[in-house]
Amino acid sequence: TDVFFAINCFMFQPTRFGITILKNSPFRHFLVKTAFVCSKQCFSMAATIPDVNSVVSVLDKLQLTHETIKHEATPTCEKHEQVLGHLGVILCKNLFFKHKKKKDKWLIVLKPERQLDPKSIGAFLGVGGGSLRFVGEADMLSLLGVKQGAVSPLGVMNDKDHAVTVVLDKALIDSGKRLGIHPLSCEATTLLSSDTLLKFLHHFGYEPRIIDFDSEPVRKESAKPKQKSQKSQKSQKSQNAKGSKNSAVDSKTLTAKMEVDFPRWYSEVVTKGELIEYYDISGCYILRPDSYFIWEQIQDFFNADLKRKGIRNAYFPMFVSEKALQAEADHVEGFSPEVAWVTHAGKTKLNVPIAIRPTSETIIYPAYAKWIKSHRDLPLRLNQWSNIVRWEFKNPTPFIRTREFLWQEGHSAFATKAEADVEVLEILDLYARVYEELLAVPVIKGRKTDNEKFPGGDYTTTIETFISHTGRSIQAATSHGLGQNFGKIFKIEFLDQHKTKRIPFQNSWGLTTRTIGVMIMQHGDNKGLVIPPRVAATQIVIIPIISKFSSEERQKFDSMTNDLYVSLKNIDLRVHLDDRDLYKPGYKFYHWELRGIPLRIEFGPKDMNSKQCVLVRRDNGDHETCSLDTVADRVPKLLEIIQNDMYQKAKETLLSKQRKIFTWEEFMGALDDRCFVLAPHCDDSKCEKSIKEKTRGSNEDEESAPAESHDAAGDEIIQKLTGSAKSLCIPFNQPDLPEGTQCVGCSEPAKKWILFGRSY
Amino acid sequence: TDVFFAINCFMFQPTRFGITILKNSPFRHFLVKTAFVCSKQCFSMAATIPDVNSVVSVLDKLQLTHETIKHEATPTCEKHEQVLGHLGVILCKNLFFKHKKKKDKWLIVLKPERQLDPKSIGAFLGVGGGSLRFVGEADMLSLLGVKQGAVSPLGVMNDKDHAVTVVLDKALIDSGKRLGIHPLSCEATTLLSSDTLLKFLHHFGYEPRIIDFDSEPVRKESAKPKQKSQKSQKSQKSQNAKGSKNSAVDSKTLTAKMEVDFPRWYSEVVTKGELIEYYDISGCYILRPDSYFIWEQIQDFFNADLKRKGIRNAYFPMFVSEKALQAEADHVEGFSPEVAWVTHAGKTKLNVPIAIRPTSETIIYPAYAKWIKSHRDLPLRLNQWSNIVRWEFKNPTPFIRTREFLWQEGHSAFATKAEADVEVLEILDLYARVYEELLAVPVIKGRKTDNEKFPGGDYTTTIETFISHTGRSIQAATSHGLGQNFGKIFKIEFLDQHKTKRIPFQNSWGLTTRTIGVMIMQHGDNKGLVIPPRVAATQIVIIPIISKFSSEERQKFDSMTNDLYVSLKNIDLRVHLDDRDLYKPGYKFYHWELRGIPLRIEFGPKDMNSKQCVLVRRDNGDHETCSLDTVADRVPKLLEIIQNDMYQKAKETLLSKQRKIFTWEEFMGALDDRCFVLAPHCDDSKCEKSIKEKTRGSNEDEESAPAESHDAAGDEIIQKLTGSAKSLCIPFNQPDLPEGTQCVGCSEPAKKWILFGRSY
Ligand SMILES: [Zn+2]
Ligand SMILES: [Zn+2]
Repeated sequence: TDVFFAINCFMFQPTRFGITILKNSPFRHFLVKTAFVCSKQCFSMAATIPDVNSVVSVLDKLQLTHETIKHEATPTCEKHEQVLGHLGVILCKNLFFKHKKKKDKWLIVLKPERQLDPKSIGAFLGVGGGSLRFVGEADMLSLLGVKQGAVSPLGVMNDKDHAVTVVLDKALIDSGKRLGIHPLSCEATTLLSSDTLLKFLHHFGYEPRIIDFDSEPVRKESAKPKQKSQKSQKSQKSQNAKGSKNSAVDSKTLTAKMEVDFPRWYSEVVTKGELIEYYDISGCYILRPDSYFIWEQIQDFFNADLKRKGIRNAYFPMFVSEKALQAEADHVEGFSPEVAWVTHAGKTKLNVPIAIRPTSETIIYPAYAKWIKSHRDLPLRLNQWSNIVRWEFKNPTPFIRTREFLWQEGHSAFATKAEADVEVLEILDLYARVYEELLAVPVIKGRKTDNEKFPGGDYTTTIETFISHTGRSIQAATSHGLGQNFGKIFKIEFLDQHKTKRIPFQNSWGLTTRTIGVMIMQHGDNKGLVIPPRVAATQIVIIPIISKFSSEERQKFDSMTNDLYVSLKNIDLRVHLDDRDLYKPGYKFYHWELRGIPLRIEFGPKDMNSKQCVLVRRDNGDHETCSLDTVADRVPKLLEIIQNDMYQKAKETLLSKQRKIFTWEEFMGALDDRCFVLAPHCDDSKCEKSIKEKTRGSNEDEESAPAESHDAAGDEIIQKLTGSAKSLCIPFNQPDLPEGTQCVGCSEPAKKWILFGRSY
Repeated sequence: TDVFFAINCFMFQPTRFGITILKNSPFRHFLVKTAFVCSKQCFSMAATIPDVNSVVSVLDKLQLTHETIKHEATPTCEKHEQVLGHLGVILCKNLFFKHKKKKDKWLIVLKPERQLDPKSIGAFLGVGGGSLRFVGEADMLSLLGVKQGAVSPLGVMNDKDHAVTVVLDKALIDSGKRLGIHPLSCEATTLLSSDTLLKFLHHFGYEPRIIDFDSEPVRKESAKPKQKSQKSQKSQKSQNAKGSKNSAVDSKTLTAKMEVDFPRWYSEVVTKGELIEYYDISGCYILRPDSYFIWEQIQDFFNADLKRKGIRNAYFPMFVSEKALQAEADHVEGFSPEVAWVTHAGKTKLNVPIAIRPTSETIIYPAYAKWIKSHRDLPLRLNQWSNIVRWEFKNPTPFIRTREFLWQEGHSAFATKAEADVEVLEILDLYARVYEELLAVPVIKGRKTDNEKFPGGDYTTTIETFISHTGRSIQAATSHGLGQNFGKIFKIEFLDQHKTKRIPFQNSWGLTTRTIGVMIMQHGDNKGLVIPPRVAATQIVIIPIISKFSSEERQKFDSMTNDLYVSLKNIDLRVHLDDRDLYKPGYKFYHWELRGIPLRIEFGPKDMNSKQCVLVRRDNGDHETCSLDTVADRVPKLLEIIQNDMYQKAKETLLSKQRKIFTWEEFMGALDDRCFVLAPHCDDSKCEKSIKEKTRGSNEDEESAPAESHDAAGDEIIQKLTGSAKSLCIPFNQPDLPEGTQCVGCSEPAKKWILFGRSY
């Protein structure tokens, strides 16, 4: 910071090529690595400012894409907007607070239009409203190396003691736009994606708290319950003035349309549809009963098949020692960045940190080495249902990408490669059946390229599917042939019939709660969830339509309604009778449509007289009347029809989105049309990687961005797909490959049809 | 250490009262806190040596029971044995190693007779055999503040950088005897229990590695697979000379008798019975298929009942923020010493450490605060099946006390206390049914005293049972009435019918994999496990007894055997046909008895002719012949008879071990007879605590020691029960309490019959 006060005396001269040569400056020898051409020509290269240069150096060293520009001093948000507003980036607002009594300090990075008083911020942070104080300039300098007006999250590079907690406005991350942040000087601005900012912070060992300052639920869970409850009480009162029923509806209404803002739609259907509750630790979610029920259905289906196959369930510890975890080099490299480490128990520091399983090969195979001695101990086939932790730093999404998730993992060992190979495919079939038969989600089977296979394994088979609304493919489940790699490392050996020592062939295979997210994305619509009947906790909801009945009529009506309910309950259907007097039928229709209940039965005064009811399908809205005499016969059949129709519809969509192409132009055109691509390929790893490179957007440094870009207000949406396309699989079902077909990537002779797409 | 070299010039004078007055010494003003009277009169008080005094001060400050004595220099084990051998304590052997290339240092504390070369030790530690070097005296001084001959785990108090890993010989802990260790000087010895040593180490932030240098399994899992495998190969070869069948039997034979060495018996039946595999992280165990199957049976039984009750399953995150975890003061105090903390993800340090759930009240109730708004949202009753981590420092025992375990936890909220109270007992009934109907384990229902209730709750109901072989009672499951305590803290509020804001009444209740351990201890015998038919993964094993058949006879025999198998399989019995040619029937009998299979069916040449088979019960050894025509009818009935008989037998044992007493003499007499005690009590907390104090053995500072004391060799066993007796519950079933009955503890008027006992 010692040179900080001198920078005003330098003069800068912009050039038309985005490269600035500094006049009259001792720093003119600095090379410009990244630059920015502005029509206003008001910017200069900023790396000539020493502090700024230190930021630029770090970003360059980390190979993070950014542009850092010099401009007149903009110590306030207003000034910043005035000077750089035309760039269309988000010029972040930075607030730097300390606790009035404790050592806690928060650097809060907000979208500029966000207006929050310290009290509200305190509520979000979980500290008393009156406890926050602004940090003075002396502390700014000593902690972040910045003066007033230049506070910025990039300053953490000077915070050696990690004294500051960085808090990011979730809206910044969701926006998909580039951010503008001062690089330790208010006379410069670094433009970077939120993802790049996160990488910068992670590099210095910071994990920012990401707070959704927009959302009511997050606001509620962010601690300081006393204050919160007074608040919500107030807002409740003011809403009650408008009528309590409406307010209840409002807070539970979908506000996003899936074709306009898919991520918000998804977030709303999972929360308002009561599958998920958000939690105060990022990337962790509560699986509410309706979603856990789906998981239990998958478990039952799966366990029944495992029993037939002779595969048994067991349970292995969740903790793994560093040594075991790191035994297999490729495996370590694949998982170690995401491993959560336990270092303390109570106040006692553990001698050796202990990892939480990111997968259990290294936990299970030392035991296999003990249990497998003879060919008579083979095959050994075990499965476990457990929780898994992978501390990903990408934007988390309920079910799809979470830091803790539930899964099953199977681990088996066979005497011969042939047996092992058979199992890999048997299990892949079972996974496909879970998706297609239970979740009504069509999948494509194939093998991963070597670039994309399981770390440490020989080969990976996969089922892939496609979310047409986002144009992204998604890996649904994988079954791996591990070969003898882990066996060699963990010394798993058996004596065969001829007393020869041999290493068994192993497989592992896993299916996670991601299944549920894929199902939601496949079938949902703008009314909310659509749950396939086989996994719906409630398959049928009966909604009595009450009229102005005489008490005698009402009694008869209630009795008939109840008979209807009991007749379905008795044949083991999962039926719910919504007999709440408080709500009108229209409200109830909406309520249950949002939750995706497959079939609604309406029963009203006319139906009473004609002894019938009306069956309304959630998947396509079709109505049919049904005699009460035959309803117990018709409903189970109709549920099966719904299940099959949902699958057929999803299958048609999938096929319509898979485009078989021959040229690079067709390839890019298909991606732009939100399709996935079956392309002829040379099967060369480098060529495959180059396709990933070539499809990466110019402003993107993120391989598979998790969400569409959209602005915070949600009215003007830029539907541009971000992220690169990668190979999804080499489909088992290979079309003819005519002689002389060229690889789409390098024009060498094609050897395979490979499926490519932007993916989750 | 600067005064260390001066101590030889002091003179000590022992006294008859175990208190030493130091002559000619500047330290004569030191007060003696703990002393030791020895018939040899060769010891002096040692705290007068400055280094020794620093150890004594710490032990006293921590209120740890110890005796520290002064004696002539004993720098070698031989000398130590010669001088202090008559005390009957274990004079530990201390080895101090460093890695020849790395910074790792190990202080290894062994029983004195243990002979291990560095190579073997390396194998146990998981480092190359040739990599260990002895630490020189300079390093001893700088690291532990000790000279050669005084190396001791107590030296960790000087190891500010935690450079040293302490390794304890498991035999030391299992011995139950006091240990003798140099307190930084070889001219003194501190006598303390292994538990006290662990507490001392924990105080300084050390978690020692506890290694079972005796046991083959532990030896195998302790890394360095290459060396290990060569080793086991060798031993296999030498055993093969004696005949491979015998060697297989040997390694799978029970070597301990339950009445002689219960802990070793238990450890052997769970491992050799293939329920458990030990794991390389202390306190974590692998649940093998046969034990996980029992857990699945419990889950199915439990889930079916929850469904009837309208309680739904969900899943909440395993991670909890420090803030939420610590919201309830009593709750924090109860759990925080055992909480495992995640501090890093990959190489990134988390801003805030995150805890792994030790129970989920503080995870679940913030969500309840969101979901509960109106009386119509009540009751809210959820259950989850999950893993739990409590990093206990007590000696772990498979199923019974483990650092990770599986459980279900139910959490409910009701509008009224009356409803909540009803549920508490409903669930306790369900728990009792799990034990009595599935596991054939009788239980006693009651309420915990306030001293023993769940931290943060209003009251705790419990089911307790008793392990007659060890004379210890064990808490089987608990169901808690939480009142409004958590509701107040997490602001759970609802509007009742009159729009009045109220706080719901909550319960929580849990049942763990401890169930399986209790079942094993209840029913096992010296042949191994005895599994109740309802939870046995294999209920019946068919053992064909092959004779010298003609090939035609053999074909008929095999066909009839198979028919028998199929006839039982077809009625959904879990039957296994052991048709291995390699083993003789006797070996198979032994094999399946060890695994506790409830029913054995023998089928031999005579049976073939008379179309019958022999049914042999595992629980009591009874044989009966059964016609093949009726076997499918008889076997299911017999399994039910076995189930009931096992329960009845256990119930009789329980009743015979419960002793109703009136006086303190009877109380202590009953404990000495390995009974548990129903005693009249004043219901005063202080009086209850004083009973705990009074029953604590004089050499014990451990409240509920996990195991019998026994020596390492296992031939001369001291069957003295350790640990204090505490109140188990106030049984719901209260006998008459005659007017004027006095409290067994304080002679005040008794108010209740309370159950006391030494417990797990
Ligand atoms: Zn190519
Ligand atoms: Zn008393």
